[in-house]
This record gives sequence, C-alpha cells and structure tokens, in this order.
Amino acid sequence: MPSIAATDIARRLAQLREAAPLVQCLTNSVVMNFTANVLLAAGAAPAMVDIPGEAGAFARVASAVLVNLGTPYAERREAMLEAARAATGAGTPWVLDPVAIGSLPIRTALAAELLALRPTVVRGNPSEILALAGAGAGGRGVDSVAAPDAAVDAAHVLARGHGCVVAISGATDVITDGATDIRLGNGDRLLTRVTGGGCALGALMAAFLGAQREAPLQAVAAAVAMYTIAAEVAARAAAGPGTFAVRLLDALAGLDEATLEARLAVD
Amino acid sequence: MPSIAATDIARRLAQLREAAPLVQCLTNSVVMNFTANVLLAAGAAPAMVDIPGEAGAFARVASAVLVNLGTPYAERREAMLEAARAATGAGTPWVLDPVAIGSLPIRTALAAELLALRPTVVRGNPSEILALAGAGAGGRGVDSVAAPDAAVDAAHVLARGHGCVVAISGATDVITDGATDIRLGNGDRLLTRVTGGGCALGALMAAFLGAQREAPLQAVAAAVAMYTIAAEVAARAAAGPGTFAVRLLDALAGLDEATLEARLAVD
Amino acid sequence: MPSIAATDIARRLAQLREAAPLVQCLTNSVVMNFTANVLLAAGAAPAMVDIPGEAGAFARVASAVLVNLGTPYAERREAMLEAARAATGAGTPWVLDPVAIGSLPIRTALAAELLALRPTVVRGNPSEILALAGAGAGGRGVDSVAAPDAAVDAAHVLARGHGCVVAISGATDVITDGATDIRLGNGDRLLTRVTGGGCALGALMAAFLGAQREAPLQAVAAAVAMYTIAAEVAARAAAGPGTFAVRLLDALAGLDEATLEARLAVD
Repeated sequence: MPSIAATDIARRLAQLREAAPLVQCLTNSVVMNFTANVLLAAGAAPAMVDIPGEAGAFARVASAVLVNLGTPYAERREAMLEAARAATGAGTPWVLDPVAIGSLPIRTALAAELLALRPTVVRGNPSEILALAGAGAGGRGVDSVAAPDAAVDAAHVLARGHGCVVAISGATDVITDGATDIRLGNGDRLLTRVTGGGCALGALMAAFLGAQREAPLQAVAAAVAMYTIAAEVAARAAAGPGTFAVRLLDALAGLDEATLEARLAVD
Repeated sequence: MPSIAATDIARRLAQLREAAPLVQCLTNSVVMNFTANVLLAAGAAPAMVDIPGEAGAFARVASAVLVNLGTPYAERREAMLEAARAATGAGTPWVLDPVAIGSLPIRTALAAELLALRPTVVRGNPSEILALAGAGAGGRGVDSVAAPDAAVDAAHVLARGHGCVVAISGATDVITDGATDIRLGNGDRLLTRVTGGGCALGALMAAFLGAQREAPLQAVAAAVAMYTIAAEVAARAAAGPGTFAVRLLDALAGLDEATLEARLAVD
Repeated sequence: MPSIAATDIARRLAQLREAAPLVQCLTNSVVMNFTANVLLAAGAAPAMVDIPGEAGAFARVASAVLVNLGTPYAERREAMLEAARAATGAGTPWVLDPVAIGSLPIRTALAAELLALRPTVVRGNPSEILALAGAGAGGRGVDSVAAPDAAVDAAHVLARGHGCVVAISGATDVITDGATDIRLGNGDRLLTRVTGGGCALGALMAAFLGAQREAPLQAVAAAVAMYTIAAEVAARAAAGPGTFAVRLLDALAGLDEATLEARLAVD
C-alpha cells in the first residue's frame, strides 16, 4: 500500500484552489518574483511582507508563512524571527527553508534559532538537513553534495526532536514526520537548472498547509506532487531552462486532478 | 463623447517612444525585474536608483519617478522620502503606489507622509485608494476586497484634496483628477495571475508622464490603455500565466497605434 | 591573424561546463534572478552570498566573484568590500561592474575603493569605463551616451594602471589587458531591451575566470562570445524582448562548440 493515496493528493489540490490561501513569504531576493508567480499560478495569494513591525502582525492573519534563509539581510533576519514567533503563537503553520546553511555562519545560527521556534515544516536538500540536524558541515552554496538517503536519518531526528515534518529534495523526495516516510519520484532535472526551483516549492508547501491545516505530512506531499508533476508537464514543452521555467508556471495553473493522479510516482 | 479620444492615446504612445523617458523606480524587490523589463519593452529607460544619497539627486534629473511601497525596507523608505521631496521640488512628475496599505502600519504611515509631498499621480486598487483616503481599513495583502466603484468617491476626495490624478485598477480602470473621470475597460484576467501586474503599470504611468508632462490625466489613461491592450494581445498567445507575462513584454514592444485605437474600450 | 582563435574560445566553453564553477554574486536586486539563471543555463553554479560576515569567507572558497554596483544598499556595500578584499587575498578572480557610476556619488566612491582592491576584470559600458578612469562624468543611469571607441583609451589606462582586464560593451565589444585588444562583433540589439543584459554577462565572465584562471583576457573574450552568440540564436526564436530573454537562457544551455566557432565575429 502506498504511503499516500493519489486521491488524497488530488483532493488537496482542489482544496488549495478553493481556499486561495494567503501565503506570507520572507524569502531571498533572488527568487521573490518566481516564488510569487508560482503561488499565483497554483491558486494561492502571495504577500511578501518581510519588514520588522509588519511581519509579525501579518503572520498572525496569514494562512501560512514561508521563512527562507537565502540573502538573509539584517533587517529581514529580524523580520523572520518576528514572523516565526507570531506564527507559532497564533497557530499559523510555517515552513523553514534553511538555504545553504552549514559553513555560512550567520544563516546557520539563524536557522538554529528559528528551529527552536517550532516550524511546522523544514524543507531542504540533503546537505542542509544534515547541517540543521548538526550532523554535517553543509553544502556548497545552494547545491547539495550528499545523496538524499544519507539525510533521512537526520530528518527523522529533526522531525522527532522538534515535532515537525521534514522534506528532503532530490531525485526522490522524502517527506517524514519521524514515524511515516513518504517517497515521491516525480520531477525533471531541468528543475535544478532554474534558480529558485526548490525555494518556490517551500512556498507551495506553505500554501497547501494554509489551505488545510490538518495532516501537514500529507499537505507537504501534495505540494511536492503538484510541483514535480507540473515540472514533468513543463519539460515536455521546454527547449531549455528558460522555456521550462515559463512553462512550469503554465503547468501549475493548468494541472488537473486526473493528470496528478495518473502521473503520481509514490513508493 | 468619450472622455478621451483614441487618437490622443495613440499620439501619446508615439511620444513615449520618441522621448524614451528616464524613469527612476523606487519599487519593491518582488517586481523590480519585471518593472524594468516593462519599461524597456514600452520604450522607456528604467533606472532603479533607490538609496539615500543618490535617490534625491537623481529625481531632479529623471524624466519621472515611481514610488511603490511594497517591501518598504528602512533604507528604501528614507530614499523614497528623499526622492519624493526632490521630485516635487524640481517639478519632476511622480507616481505613488501605496501597495497593501491599510492594516500594515509602517507603509500606511509612510504613504500618508508621501501623500503630503504632493505626488502627481496615485495608483492603487480600490482597497488601497480607500485606505489612503482614510475611508477604509485596507485590503488583504496586495489583493483588493472592494469593488472599483466603491473607491471612486474616495478617489475624488484624494484628487481634489491633494491636486493629484488618482487611478483605480479593476475590471474597469477609473482615472480621475476630481473633475473628469475616464473609464477604460480593456485588460485580461491573467494580469491578476502575474506578480507585479499592477506595480509595473505604475512605472508605465511614470513613463508617460515623463514623456509629456502636460495633461497628467490623459498621460495616465494612455499608460492604462497601452498596458491593458497589450495584455489582451498577450493573452491570445498565452497558454497560462507564465507565457502570458513573457508575451506581455513582447506585446508592449510591438503594439502599434492602429491596434491601440481599434481595441480601446473607453466609456 | 585574429586576436583570439575560435578554437580557443570553444575549448573554454567545454572547460566551463566541465568545471561547473561556483560563482559568488554580489549584484543588484533588479537582476539577481536573471543572473543566477544565466549562470545555471551556461553550466555554472551561482551563489548570491552578499551579507557582511558571510561574503568574505565565501569569496575565499568560491571559484570566482562578481561585484556589481547597481542598487548598492549599505549592507551590500560593506559585503562587497569584504568579498573583494578576501578574493584578492585568496587569489580568487573577481569582476567589478561599476553600474551607472559617474554622477551618482555613493557608487562612484565605492567603485574607486573597489578598484584599489585589484579586480581581475572591470566590465562596463563606455560611460562607466570613462568615469572609472576619471575621464568622464558618467552616463544617464545604466545607459551609455558615449561610443565604445571613445572609451578604449580609458580602458588602456585602467588596464595598465591596475593590472586588470577591461571589457567595454557595445555593438563591438572591446576587451583589453592594456597590451592586446580583442574586438568581438556578435550580439543582437534585443540585448539592450532586457534588463540585466549586461549585468549577467559580468557574472558569466566570472564563471569563465573560475573555470580556468590562466589567461583572463581570453576567459573574458570567451564569456562575451558565448553570451553574444547565444543572443543571436535567441533572437531568431524571439517575437520581442520577452521571448528573447527566455530563449537566451535556452540558447546558453544548448550552445555547442561548432556553432560558437562558426558564428564568432572577431576582428
């Protein structure tokens, strides 16, 4: 029996579009535009509210929050802590994406501080998950040098120790709450040739969490499935990474439940 | 008789391309790239000069200035005030886009401060115009929860009280100087599925003001007409929001006066 | 005899893809996304590490560094100086792109300070090169008002005085180390209708320097050739500036050595 039913994921896609959740993003300057467009294409409403004095109040009313540590300018770091505290206090689900932590000192310390504020979900590549669990020295910028399976043990430790869902990206995506692992095998290598391919997925996880707060493990799996299956559809229409990124937005907007169910590759 | 002649708008398009106005943008980090590309496609020259110590001096020599309140970081807020003061002092036309004001305290206070510096044009969705006029509590992030007509009274109050032109976006765009209302009905719903769809229009308004400083009401109407008609052309070639945004840039660059006149939907 | 052999450039393209150099970018907020996508498409790995406390340490391990002066926020200025000092100290090649210097005081002073830290390469339009050499008052924002040849003398002065390679963009690109000039005539006018067209080229220069540290003059020429020939390929598939930018990424990813050699226009 698969760890998640295709019909469950398809139902969550319908819920996402029905709810049109308001997703607050505190994310890096490289991918803000693409992230907002991914959310709009998927049916969510992005709001990049990322300054101290506004971020906390907004996190209390948003459907969900994304905190992504790329380009962590001082003012944005303060806003991230404010938003994370407010989100946890208000019960707003939030996603932590610890981009490139490990050897970079400022964001690594910030990730530890944010982890203590109890994110609903942690998303990263294997190097980042290893680093966050204290088991590795991190990667080479945003690239991962470790294979996904090497990080699964670290993900279990993180999930159990912090009561969160952990998602590890890779050729196979692994999503775990420490008890159940979901493994999804969709996607396309062109996703690694577009900047923010992973960062935008973190925002989409927040969107699914915001649409349906119960069962975050399944919400995260639905986000991964929608995104990686849309990537497969986009790759068929792509002549390279430029057209792929554009077609990914089209595919997210156009993806129907039947295609999602038919293409889902779940272990 | 329509409130603006199609031939007047077509003439302004030709003037824009002839003048290639230099448009200084102090705008949010989400849409900087798209905004610059919209200006370049339309025939203007963007310059994102948005730091204190440079923003004011540049505003004195720019053709026009855009001040957009999304992601209002502290340093950028200071630069916005510097640019607005310099623009008003030098007679450089400038556009204020009070993104998501209402419940977010920092930008709402900043918008009031900027309004007192006498913008040439204020552009927003109905919620933002209501909030700026003190008549509402603002929207839900960048989305508007009020219908355009509900904000027309507020726009009249703003326009008369501050001597500015006010543009309200919506299925019908309303542009008013407090005495004359221009209503334009072009556009496509895909514009709401691309981040910065409205923000870039604010920059294009600045471009038309910079090309021809007389008659700001008509300059703003020309910007709305060019942008929303290009959106209609782009939508025909689009398979979703990704290709739409790309084709919008192509359509802005390729739009001719005959198409503009033929498609213009003016009340 | 041409100043550089087409086979030398083709060999460097193969080396770039083999090395997949890690390119640290401290660049302006308008073009961060496009720059990262250009690097990924070309086969390099971008890392936008641009905060004080991380920028210097990263510059010591990166393959190469780009320092681009558009939107020079205070925190980023500090990070730029930190990265430049570290890069020079560690022998990491780095590129200085003095965007819009001349009349804008803060970035002009910063450019002089950075120049004293011995960049490997300086890239700019004629106005920027003239301003950096102290011979002109700079341009009109990011546009150049001077013809490329007017800046060649200034480039020679800069190159000899600072031991760097200087690249001047234009219809003909001129690359000089003060002794040898390479003139390349590829490209397409659509490059001037896309924001960051020049900025991303600076990042690609860093990528070629990072892949093969010897002979920076030839590395820079290879970057210009790859980029401008990809632009020619993209222009054939473009319906305007929007599709052109997308197709440029596709063309960078797909460009083969035979096309590069066949299309190279070298004096």
